Amino acid sequence: MTQHRIAFLGLGSMGQAMAANLLKAGHRLRVYNRTASKADPLQQQGATVAATPAEAVQDAEFVFTMVTDDAALLELCLGPTGFLTALPQGAVHASCSTVAPDTNRRLAEEHGRHGSSLVATPVFGKPDVAAAGKLWLAVAGEASAREKIKPVLGALGQGVHDFGDDAGAASVVKLCGNFMLGAAIEAMAEAFTLAQKSGLDRQQVYEFFTSTLFNTPIYKSYGKLIAERHYQPVGAPPAIIRKDLRLVLDEARTRVVPMPFANIIHDHLSTSVAKGEQNDWAGFAERVAEGAGL
Amino acid sequence: MTQHRIAFLGLGSMGQAMAANLLKAGHRLRVYNRTASKADPLQQQGATVAATPAEAVQDAEFVFTMVTDDAALLELCLGPTGFLTALPQGAVHASCSTVAPDTNRRLAEEHGRHGSSLVATPVFGKPDVAAAGKLWLAVAGEASAREKIKPVLGALGQGVHDFGDDAGAASVVKLCGNFMLGAAIEAMAEAFTLAQKSGLDRQQVYEFFTSTLFNTPIYKSYGKLIAERHYQPVGAPPAIIRKDLRLVLDEARTRVVPMPFANIIHDHLSTSVAKGEQNDWAGFAERVAEGAGL
Amino acid sequence: MTQHRIAFLGLGSMGQAMAANLLKAGHRLRVYNRTASKADPLQQQGATVAATPAEAVQDAEFVFTMVTDDAALLELCLGPTGFLTALPQGAVHASCSTVAPDTNRRLAEEHGRHGSSLVATPVFGKPDVAAAGKLWLAVAGEASAREKIKPVLGALGQGVHDFGDDAGAASVVKLCGNFMLGAAIEAMAEAFTLAQKSGLDRQQVYEFFTSTLFNTPIYKSYGKLIAERHYQPVGAPPAIIRKDLRLVLDEARTRVVPMPFANIIHDHLSTSVAKGEQNDWAGFAERVAEGAGL
Amino acid sequence: MTQHRIAFLGLGSMGQAMAANLLKAGHRLRVYNRTASKADPLQQQGATVAATPAEAVQDAEFVFTMVTDDAALLELCLGPTGFLTALPQGAVHASCSTVAPDTNRRLAEEHGRHGSSLVATPVFGKPDVAAAGKLWLAVAGEASAREKIKPVLGALGQGVHDFGDDAGAASVVKLCGNFMLGAAIEAMAEAFTLAQKSGLDRQQVYEFFTSTLFNTPIYKSYGKLIAERHYQPVGAPPAIIRKDLRLVLDEARTRVVPMPFANIIHDHLSTSVAKGEQNDWAGFAERVAEGAGL
Repeated sequence: MTQHRIAFLGLGSMGQAMAANLLKAGHRLRVYNRTASKADPLQQQGATVAATPAEAVQDAEFVFTMVTDDAALLELCLGPTGFLTALPQGAVHASCSTVAPDTNRRLAEEHGRHGSSLVATPVFGKPDVAAAGKLWLAVAGEASAREKIKPVLGALGQGVHDFGDDAGAASVVKLCGNFMLGAAIEAMAEAFTLAQKSGLDRQQVYEFFTSTLFNTPIYKSYGKLIAERHYQPVGAPPAIIRKDLRLVLDEARTRVVPMPFANIIHDHLSTSVAKGEQNDWAGFAERVAEGAGL
Repeated sequence: MTQHRIAFLGLGSMGQAMAANLLKAGHRLRVYNRTASKADPLQQQGATVAATPAEAVQDAEFVFTMVTDDAALLELCLGPTGFLTALPQGAVHASCSTVAPDTNRRLAEEHGRHGSSLVATPVFGKPDVAAAGKLWLAVAGEASAREKIKPVLGALGQGVHDFGDDAGAASVVKLCGNFMLGAAIEAMAEAFTLAQKSGLDRQQVYEFFTSTLFNTPIYKSYGKLIAERHYQPVGAPPAIIRKDLRLVLDEARTRVVPMPFANIIHDHLSTSVAKGEQNDWAGFAERVAEGAGL
Repeated sequence: MTQHRIAFLGLGSMGQAMAANLLKAGHRLRVYNRTASKADPLQQQGATVAATPAEAVQDAEFVFTMVTDDAALLELCLGPTGFLTALPQGAVHASCSTVAPDTNRRLAEEHGRHGSSLVATPVFGKPDVAAAGKLWLAVAGEASAREKIKPVLGALGQGVHDFGDDAGAASVVKLCGNFMLGAAIEAMAEAFTLAQKSGLDRQQVYEFFTSTLFNTPIYKSYGKLIAERHYQPVGAPPAIIRKDLRLVLDEARTRVVPMPFANIIHDHLSTSVAKGEQNDWAGFAERVAEGAGL
Repeated sequence: MTQHRIAFLGLGSMGQAMAANLLKAGHRLRVYNRTASKADPLQQQGATVAATPAEAVQDAEFVFTMVTDDAALLELCLGPTGFLTALPQGAVHASCSTVAPDTNRRLAEEHGRHGSSLVATPVFGKPDVAAAGKLWLAVAGEASAREKIKPVLGALGQGVHDFGDDAGAASVVKLCGNFMLGAAIEAMAEAFTLAQKSGLDRQQVYEFFTSTLFNTPIYKSYGKLIAERHYQPVGAPPAIIRKDLRLVLDEARTRVVPMPFANIIHDHLSTSVAKGEQNDWAGFAERVAEGAGL
């Protein structure tokens, strides 16, 4: 496999796991994170640590970004020490964060003006899945850039799904995915609560469904939290996924699509945020329990 | 395997497939259906056809019932030609229909008064799954009756899940299952519609999710209908599953459990019924498309 | 004004106030209540107290019933000491309780079989409005019976609205009214909560709207409870109006009418019941405050 | 009454009616509208027509703005020919449009930097109410500016309600008002549809409620459209009020307030927009009729 010069910006739990896999695959990595200490483990594994986004991308062929929201991504790219103008000609930016489709579209245009490219590259999976190199990836953006980045993405996941030239398209897919996860969580919350108040054992109901009709890792992992009503560890906090649902509803507004389930998930997450819950986002399942007086 | 004398009452597409598998397993079958012609294929396979429910159970060790609603089940059991009083001592009634938990509870008591037993035995799967003998089954009811019926159920499915002594419990599980299927349908309907109006291809989005996060037969089979917006053939019509959602909401009322998703699914099915749609029940996904002006 | 022999059954706070007004109008009253002590004040005002419903109606020209639900009404009419068969030929039953349209329809038929008539006579207003003789009344039922009862109803309210021959029709109107009150309550709850969390004073927002766009006694009286978040005294407890919303949703099912607002009101009342709140039913406004973390 | 030099910018049906009343009150008016022809009737009544916003405010003591959305207001103030920098020292801007609270807050700060003031002055009422000088007005903003503008507002309405120093506060009140109107519309839509499908006459149900519990101009005027299912003339098109509901939901997000009724109203308006309906916004009541198969 060809080794590349890669910059990785944004070292939360997802970013760290992904960067580590790029290192393992033999690439030369330069990393950056706003809180510098998060770069330590990667430095020990051989990565170089940069002081600014711009410094990180100096001689990069590829730059990965994985941050929490649109504002953080825009700051990385276009802020005072942002990397966009520092990026070498022909470099490809793999934009992995969950952001608005229009944010990736707008940044793709900016890249075009500076001789580089953006490929929206949202990833699906929790940190443990990322660490195992088993993410699913969607890509969208300018065709030649997509072809360049695909081999590199092999180190991160178990398949790359191509959604064509519009960088925004991959973001839409990511938003749909988080929405559908939220729907599965609410559905289990309602079902398990009904079962419990009807005299059944939540755990047994959970085990039945996740070994039959809903026999998937997603239902199993979130369902376990809901069955036990214990939402630890925190894969993603409510505020982050509430932001994602906000992006879903913003896209739904722009495209004029009523989404009643999305409204409910968003509102339940809002209450989690209003209450200051320190749970995984699946903890919004407690809204159903509370409504039933549990 | 021991051969048994079994009566099978209710020969819709599910009942026919299940009865055929009991025949194949070597049991002696006596069948009954209100519309007698539906019994013809089973007669050709060796079943005896009875003129009334009472006649069908004459010397039965087990009686299966699979009808569309509570009223039909009560008629079979307690109607003028109903089988309850005709059932031999010690016989076990496998009540497979999707009915209110309290209907099975009430009938279980009636059986007890006549020296027989009822085991609620709801099944999960479409007619093609029933034909393949791959249903999932839940059972609940009096302990010794459950033990008697379990070996017989082996011919029908790929596993029997035991929910204990309360016959109503298995009905609750069935209702939860149909609700969760409805939630998956609505979630896909909203996601695919958003994706389409954002410029993506419904089909590709469907394929992505059902080969990654939601890689299950359920999401695949219902999702295909939704992606294509073509809801044929009709596995179950909207009116039947609307009745199931009504039972879900009735149980939710009794147990005092707000279920916002269940309300939405029920209401979408109501509109399917109000419009007289001749689609599979998953066709309520069209409510989302209509809302978005598609 | 002609004096009549009237039986009044059901002496909750509404029934007592209405019966007192019939007495004041000069009618001869015989009253009955399951808890007999509630009849004391009326006895002091000149009413005769009966030991059973049947006894109460002995020589009645009119019988009023005002109880909490369908079961209580059916018991009064058809129970072991029920009045239906004791009612003199040609007497008119003013059925004032909030019950299912079909309950009044069914009872109207029973009356017909016994030579008496039922006029559904739901009333709109709280106990203080009833005491002031300012209720609004809707009537529906057999034409000549409606004409007989109308003059008597003058003592109770400020107008009688005639909804024709179908006794169920007046019940539908009553259900619509309670639903619309619930919608006004939820709307104020959401608006006042939004205003409060935006830094405004709930009370001022309340005063503004109820002196301008929503300048009605209904908005004023319920809005005051919501603005102050103090839901006392209890005009009607959550369980009673939750029952009414259940009847709304039952009628909506039968008629196949999706009612998303009704679902939300019902579910909020369910939570009030699940929590055992000792508030007026408008206290379901707290669901909005809780959702916002207040 | 003191005569003032007033600029009026934005001459839609509301703006024209308000400007005409300021003229009638004896003020000197200079008007501006993007489509100049709309100024003709006012010119004939004595107003001077300006070619740009900046020109309109030249010697103004007060400037009123009444436009359809935040973007149009920002353009009027801050655009290439915007009036903010042209406004005389000490002048007061009465910002009447329905905009985001933060838009008025931000503009208030801009005014402060240029020696003028902004008072948020949302108005409540349809064009015919505006023409009759019977609007209700809310004001909020810097104290001395509020006191200056209040006497002028007397010509427009039947009362000015003061919400204090925060210009955003009056916008919040306006948003709450439009939301509550939407809730009343949806409530009537559900009630009238249920009644109709239960065999009652929509018109009679409408007349009953708007002469009893909901005896207000608001319920009467919107209710009439809903009862007749004829939503003409168009007081405000669905897209405009959908924008207002969007602002409601944006504020609800920012303040973390789940508003289930607001979601439903917004979504119903979205469908009206998606279908391209040429109705008054109350026409979203048709969503309920459609859901019931009418």
